[in-house]
Amino acid sequence: MARTVKQSQEVLDDIRREAKTVYDKISRRQKPQMKLPIRSLSNVRYDRKRGHFQLRGRNKVRTLTVNTVKTFAQTLKMLAMSRDLIQTERHSTKREAYYQAYNWGEAAFAGQDESDTVMDDVEAMLAVNREQLHFRADEHGGEVAGELIVLDRDRRTGAPLEIDCTKFGSGAYSVPTVVENLGFRTKAKFLLAVETKGMFERLVEEDFYDKQHCILVSMGGVPSRACRRFIRRLSDEKNLPVYVFTDGDPYGYFNIYRTLKVGSGNAAHLNEYFCVPRARFLGVTPEDIVRYNLPTHPLKEVDVKRARDAIANDPFIQSYKAWQNAVEKLLKMGVRVEQQALAKHGLEFVAEQYLPAKLKETGKFLP
Amino acid sequence: MARTVKQSQEVLDDIRREAKTVYDKISRRQKPQMKLPIRSLSNVRYDRKRGHFQLRGRNKVRTLTVNTVKTFAQTLKMLAMSRDLIQTERHSTKREAYYQAYNWGEAAFAGQDESDTVMDDVEAMLAVNREQLHFRADEHGGEVAGELIVLDRDRRTGAPLEIDCTKFGSGAYSVPTVVENLGFRTKAKFLLAVETKGMFERLVEEDFYDKQHCILVSMGGVPSRACRRFIRRLSDEKNLPVYVFTDGDPYGYFNIYRTLKVGSGNAAHLNEYFCVPRARFLGVTPEDIVRYNLPTHPLKEVDVKRARDAIANDPFIQSYKAWQNAVEKLLKMGVRVEQQALAKHGLEFVAEQYLPAKLKETGKFLP
Repeated sequence: MARTVKQSQEVLDDIRREAKTVYDKISRRQKPQMKLPIRSLSNVRYDRKRGHFQLRGRNKVRTLTVNTVKTFAQTLKMLAMSRDLIQTERHSTKREAYYQAYNWGEAAFAGQDESDTVMDDVEAMLAVNREQLHFRADEHGGEVAGELIVLDRDRRTGAPLEIDCTKFGSGAYSVPTVVENLGFRTKAKFLLAVETKGMFERLVEEDFYDKQHCILVSMGGVPSRACRRFIRRLSDEKNLPVYVFTDGDPYGYFNIYRTLKVGSGNAAHLNEYFCVPRARFLGVTPEDIVRYNLPTHPLKEVDVKRARDAIANDPFIQSYKAWQNAVEKLLKMGVRVEQQALAKHGLEFVAEQYLPAKLKETGKFLP
Repeated sequence: MARTVKQSQEVLDDIRREAKTVYDKISRRQKPQMKLPIRSLSNVRYDRKRGHFQLRGRNKVRTLTVNTVKTFAQTLKMLAMSRDLIQTERHSTKREAYYQAYNWGEAAFAGQDESDTVMDDVEAMLAVNREQLHFRADEHGGEVAGELIVLDRDRRTGAPLEIDCTKFGSGAYSVPTVVENLGFRTKAKFLLAVETKGMFERLVEEDFYDKQHCILVSMGGVPSRACRRFIRRLSDEKNLPVYVFTDGDPYGYFNIYRTLKVGSGNAAHLNEYFCVPRARFLGVTPEDIVRYNLPTHPLKEVDVKRARDAIANDPFIQSYKAWQNAVEKLLKMGVRVEQQALAKHGLEFVAEQYLPAKLKETGKFLP
């Protein structure tokens, strides 16, 4: 489905080749160039078959001139920093990268927005993701409990580690920000990604993963890159269906579910790695409100705006009639519903009635 | 230092006694009353010896009248809900509690603010914390790596579980929202609570906990109740020093460090459980900016306001000259500094130079 993720050695080779091209040009007293894909919504399309937002392939070319000399130098220095990180098996947050660049003299960044842009350039240029360059975001990666053994290694000894996600009691496994080197072993039937930590702990408490033979992931709101990448790699490697359980509101549908499934518009060159095309939406749907007589709240103005925007502009929603219908229905009902609302029928209802009923009809899940 | 935390049976007894008192009064055709401590800053004092904000002991008395009948009923129903949760070994989020109350007929809540208030009343009335009533917040509890074995049990079999926090590779142990029943085994020399996940992962990557024999906790910004309670219980039971490593700015000093150490003003009846009086501030201090020639940013208006407010109104800061001096110094310098700024001297600098130097002079840590 996706290109194979580049291995560290391959990334190192690419960095060297890129640098050598520039070096050779300069040695021959020619103006060096760097070619970068344009990163904006205008250069994006949604391909149902590939399953994520994609770049249309338009590039910009950066030629070394008096005006571009600083950015040019920064890009090369950023490539060098990445090479050092890969070679020393370290990772740097974006913030740390910005501070390390304080020593770059005239090439130092004016602010982190500048260093982030150069980092984005570098990952687009090499067609890799930031994590492969050994940069990482300062964000949580989600939490995991259930029938999964994560394979990692002890950094000090190199010895393999097996992390059994059924052995955390009331706690959980916290996903690191870089997941490229993790392996997996599982006999689970599916992965259930949950919007809130509260619902995640509810399902753990109800022994849900044991009864349903699944893996539970708490996204904690909009899933971070690390969380999306973790679910993606796990689902790819273990051929695992992914079901998503959020509130029944435009935020749950678009900001959480859509981001998990197809990625986000402003990072289209990365969606290939940071989306889960096979994800399907389990609930909470507008139908559930009626079927289970759930307590609701009126849609807020921001909800209505978000829903109308999505219908008008979001290539993903536009591609699926079922989603358009669902959103129209919610707008017509004028309400939103939270996943916790199922507690009206008792705390155990979600685990013993709602989810098992849904899981019998996975074909009815929204795409 | 603190009262012993009440065990489940004791809480059940208290609930029964409270309910019985009301029942007996009504049976004798008298007006039942409930006594609640007043929860506001005006009823708070800071006691250096006890180490946290405390209630001054003023109470309000709620008598059953036509005006109070709904709140009275809600309080009793909330007590009954808590009893059910304890007896079934379940926990309910505040949000779930609100939805469960949809079936209370005329006593149903108009909104979650109402149910939260009644929950606060109940915990103050019984002098317990919400978690002991088996209510929990929907929040992360922080992450842990290092020389600690967490003792939990398998909910299904009751079998004991040992969770070794040195065995997570690049990941971590995610602390559950309720930590009352966890046990600990450790030979660590201290616990280091870190502001950001990025710095936490930096220290894990540098083998810091191995070299320094410590436990690392990522607070992820202002520590949640669960995170504070976890650190408190661990440090109490294992007599473990707690050092705190945040950015050098008013937010790090007051919103993060002060909340961890003494609790927050608007939940004074709970600080006894949710603060870590022995915590001491390792850095980043204003002196560090000069000593290590760190990159800084100008203080924002909100920083200056926060600092001036603290000097003028915060009983904790007012109690420590050293903190007043530190804040005054920062205001005079007009700058703030991030913990990531240490990366200017190389990624490994924080683990190999900065923290080891600090740890040789723990006596100099801010109180």
